Amino acid sequence: MPLINNFCMRIIIIGGVAAGAKTAAKSKRMLPDAEVHIYTKDNFVSYSACGMPYYIGGDFQDWQQLIVRTKEEFEKSGIQIHTREEVTKILPADKKIVVKKLDTEEWQFVEYDKLVLATGANAFIPEFVNKDMKQIYTLRTLDDGIALKAGMKEAEHITIVGGGYIAIELIEAFVKNKKRVTLVEAAPFVLSMLDEDISSLVQEYILENSEGLVKIINEDTVSEILDADRVLDVITSKGYGFETDMVVVTAGVKPAVDIAKDAGVELGPTGAIKVNSRMETSIPDIYACGDCAEKINMISHTPVWLPLGSTANKEGRVAAINVCGGVDDFEGVLGSAVLRYMALNISKTGLTEKDALKLGYDAVSVVITKRDKAGYMPEVKNITLKIIADRRSHKILGAQAIGCGDADKRINTISVGLLQGITVEQLIDADLTYAPPFSTSIDILISAAQILKSKLY
Amino acid sequence: MPLINNFCMRIIIIGGVAAGAKTAAKSKRMLPDAEVHIYTKDNFVSYSACGMPYYIGGDFQDWQQLIVRTKEEFEKSGIQIHTREEVTKILPADKKIVVKKLDTEEWQFVEYDKLVLATGANAFIPEFVNKDMKQIYTLRTLDDGIALKAGMKEAEHITIVGGGYIAIELIEAFVKNKKRVTLVEAAPFVLSMLDEDISSLVQEYILENSEGLVKIINEDTVSEILDADRVLDVITSKGYGFETDMVVVTAGVKPAVDIAKDAGVELGPTGAIKVNSRMETSIPDIYACGDCAEKINMISHTPVWLPLGSTANKEGRVAAINVCGGVDDFEGVLGSAVLRYMALNISKTGLTEKDALKLGYDAVSVVITKRDKAGYMPEVKNITLKIIADRRSHKILGAQAIGCGDADKRINTISVGLLQGITVEQLIDADLTYAPPFSTSIDILISAAQILKSKLY
Repeated sequence: MPLINNFCMRIIIIGGVAAGAKTAAKSKRMLPDAEVHIYTKDNFVSYSACGMPYYIGGDFQDWQQLIVRTKEEFEKSGIQIHTREEVTKILPADKKIVVKKLDTEEWQFVEYDKLVLATGANAFIPEFVNKDMKQIYTLRTLDDGIALKAGMKEAEHITIVGGGYIAIELIEAFVKNKKRVTLVEAAPFVLSMLDEDISSLVQEYILENSEGLVKIINEDTVSEILDADRVLDVITSKGYGFETDMVVVTAGVKPAVDIAKDAGVELGPTGAIKVNSRMETSIPDIYACGDCAEKINMISHTPVWLPLGSTANKEGRVAAINVCGGVDDFEGVLGSAVLRYMALNISKTGLTEKDALKLGYDAVSVVITKRDKAGYMPEVKNITLKIIADRRSHKILGAQAIGCGDADKRINTISVGLLQGITVEQLIDADLTYAPPFSTSIDILISAAQILKSKLY
Repeated sequence: MPLINNFCMRIIIIGGVAAGAKTAAKSKRMLPDAEVHIYTKDNFVSYSACGMPYYIGGDFQDWQQLIVRTKEEFEKSGIQIHTREEVTKILPADKKIVVKKLDTEEWQFVEYDKLVLATGANAFIPEFVNKDMKQIYTLRTLDDGIALKAGMKEAEHITIVGGGYIAIELIEAFVKNKKRVTLVEAAPFVLSMLDEDISSLVQEYILENSEGLVKIINEDTVSEILDADRVLDVITSKGYGFETDMVVVTAGVKPAVDIAKDAGVELGPTGAIKVNSRMETSIPDIYACGDCAEKINMISHTPVWLPLGSTANKEGRVAAINVCGGVDDFEGVLGSAVLRYMALNISKTGLTEKDALKLGYDAVSVVITKRDKAGYMPEVKNITLKIIADRRSHKILGAQAIGCGDADKRINTISVGLLQGITVEQLIDADLTYAPPFSTSIDILISAAQILKSKLY
C-alpha cells in the first residue's frame, strides 16, 4: 500500500470513543512517524459505549472493563490523548483547530495536516427536560453510564422516555436490579425501527417476562416533568401523571455536527456529515467517520444515518487508511442490529417492510415461527422470522427475527446475502449447516424462503 | 405451477427416511389424487437419523421422539407405507419394481408411473468385521440406534472404528454415560474432512474434556477383531492389541446403489447415482434424491458425494415438484456441516485448504482466534476461525470454525456468501449485527477477512 512519505505529518482526531480511537490506532500503525492526536471534551477515550447497559445491569461490576484501550496504552504507542480539551472551532483555510482546555479555560490554536471528525452523536433532549434536575439522565458517554448506575441504586421507580434499543437494554438492567420501570413511547409499540408485527411480539415478551415490574405507555409522550421535592412528577401529553424517582431520556440521538457545520463542512440530507466512501468530507484534508457521518444504505443506495459501534469501527479503519495515503472504501450499511431482552434475541438486517414500502418497493413478506433446533433436543426454542422481498426483482430486502432461540444467527446469514443482492430463490439454495443441536434439518431460513417464493408467483 | 393432469398416477418411492419421506409428503400435497407409496426394507420411515447420537447419549429418553411422521400419520394423509418390503429389482422397460415382503417371503410386481430412488447409504463394513459377532455395531438405521443404545448399557469399554462426524458424536454420548472409549482413526487426527490445523485442535479438546475416558489411536487401523469369550480382542495394523466390550464401526458410508446399478441407472464418478438439477436419473421417470444421489459442489462445480440430512430434505422436495409436473432445481452443495463435542462447536462450509489445493486453486488462508462476544460479558468464549480464499480471484473458497463460542453462526454467514462467490473484500463490507452479548464490535469474520486481504496483496 503506498504511504505518504511525510515524516512529521500531524493527524488530529476529534473524538476518541469508537471511530476516533480506531482511526488513531490504525494511523499510528501505518505511519509510525506521524504525530497522532486525539482531542475530546470527555474524560475517557476508547470505551465500549454499547456495553454500558450490561454494566448497569450487573453483568460485570467494574466500569474499567469497558475501556478498550487506556490513555496510558495509547500514549505508550505514541498517540497523544487530550481529554477534557474541547475543539470549539475548525479553521480549514489555515488548517488549524481552536482548542479549549476545560479545566484551565486556556485556549490554543493547533495546526493539522489531516483532520478526522469523530465527534459522535448527542442524546436528543426534548424541550420538557429541565437540565437542572439531577434525577434526569441520558446515556451517551461513560460518565453518563457511571452516573446512571449510581442514580439507579437510589431509585425505586424509574421512567424511561423513548423505546429504542438502549431503552430495552436499560429495562433489562433495571428489572435485574428489581426496579419498577415505566416506559413512555410515542409509537404503538417499543422498537419502532422494526415492523409492528414483530415489535408487538417484543413488547408482549417484555411485559410477560419482567416480574410484573414493567409498565409501557404507548402512543403518548412526556410533556412535562416537575420537581416534587424528592420525587419527580411526570405528565404525559394525554394527561396521564405519575411520580417517579428518576427519568432516563433515550428519545433518540442526533449527529454531533456543530463545529463541522460552522467550518463549512457539507452535511447530507440526514443532517449528518456527508462523506464519500473514503470518509472524505467536502473540505480537503478533513475526514469524518463514526456516528457523526452519514452512511449509504447498500440496498436502497440512499443516504441514511445509523449510529452503530460496529460501523464506527469499520469507518475509523477506512478513514485511517486514506488519511495515511492508502486507498480503502467503506461501502455502506445494511442496518443490521441485534439486542437482547432477558432470554429474547431481537435482530434485524436490511429494510423493514415499512421502509421498503416508503422507498417504493413492491414489498412482499412472510412471517413464520419455527424451532431453532431439532424438536427432541432439550434446549430447543422458537424463533419468529420475517423476510421481506421485492416482488419485481425477487431480491430479498431485509429480515427481522426474534426468539429465545438463535435468531441472530439467521439474520447474519441473510445479511451477507444482502451484500450481493440475494434473491428468494437463491436463499432456498443456501447450504446451511445442520445437526440436531444447531438447527432443524430444514432451517427456518429455508422454510421462510420457500413460502415467500410461493407468494411471488 | 403447472401440474400433470393425471388422476391415478402412481408414484413409488424406495426408501423412507429423509429424502423419501419428504418426496412422499410433498408429492401427495401437490397431487392429492395420485397414489403415493413408500417401500422400505426397514421397520421405520421418516425419522431423524442425525438425532440418534443424542438419544444414545441421553439428551432425551424415548426413541419415538426421533420419528418425524409416523406410519399412521402418513397413511392418514393417503400415503401408503410398505415397511419391511424390499425392492429387489427395477424393470425400467416395463416400469415395474419387484418387491420382496421380508416377513412372508412373498414376491410381487408393482407398476409405477414415476419412481424415486431414496435408498440412502450403507455403512461401509471393513473386511475384518465378522458379522456374526453380536458386539459389533454400526449406526445407520433407527434399529441400529436402538440396538446400539441397549448394547452400550452393558459395555464398560467401547471401541470406535473411524473418526468422522458420527464417531465424535458417539464419543460424547459414551462419555456422558461414563464409558471408556478407544477410537482408532487412520488419519493423523479425527475429523479428516477438516484441515489438520483445525482438526488437531478438535482432537486436543476431546482428549482434554472427556474425564480421562477417551483414548485416540491415530495413523493406525483395526486389522482384526477376535471373539474372546465375553470380550473382543482388537488388533491394529501396527500390532497394538486391546480388549473391548463392544465395537462401533463408523468407517464411512457408501451410497446404496445396487438396484439402481442393476437396472442400468447411470452412476457418477463418485459411485453415487448421477442426477441432473431436477433429480432425474439417466432413465426416464426414475428420479433419485438424498444420500444415494450424487451432488454438485457449488464452488468447484465438480461432482461430490456428501450424504447429509439437510440436503436430503431439500432434494426430496425438488424431486417431488418435478415428479408432479412442476419445475424446480437443486443447485448443489457447499459441504456445510456442524457438530458439537460437549461444549465445542465444530463447523465448516465450502472447500478445505487441502480440497482447494487438490482442485488446483492457488489457496491462501488465515487462522485466527478471537472472542465470540464482548470481553466483559460473563459468557464470553473463544472461536478459532480459518478462511480459505483463491489468490487469483480473491473469492472465498471455504471456512472452518471451532470453539466453545458461537462458531456455527460465523460459518452459516459465510456459506450464504459462497452461494454468490463472495470475495474477501466483499466480506470485509459485511454489515454484521453487533451488541456485546452477541459479538465483538469487529466480528471475527471481519478481522479474518482483513488479515486475509493483506495476504492477498
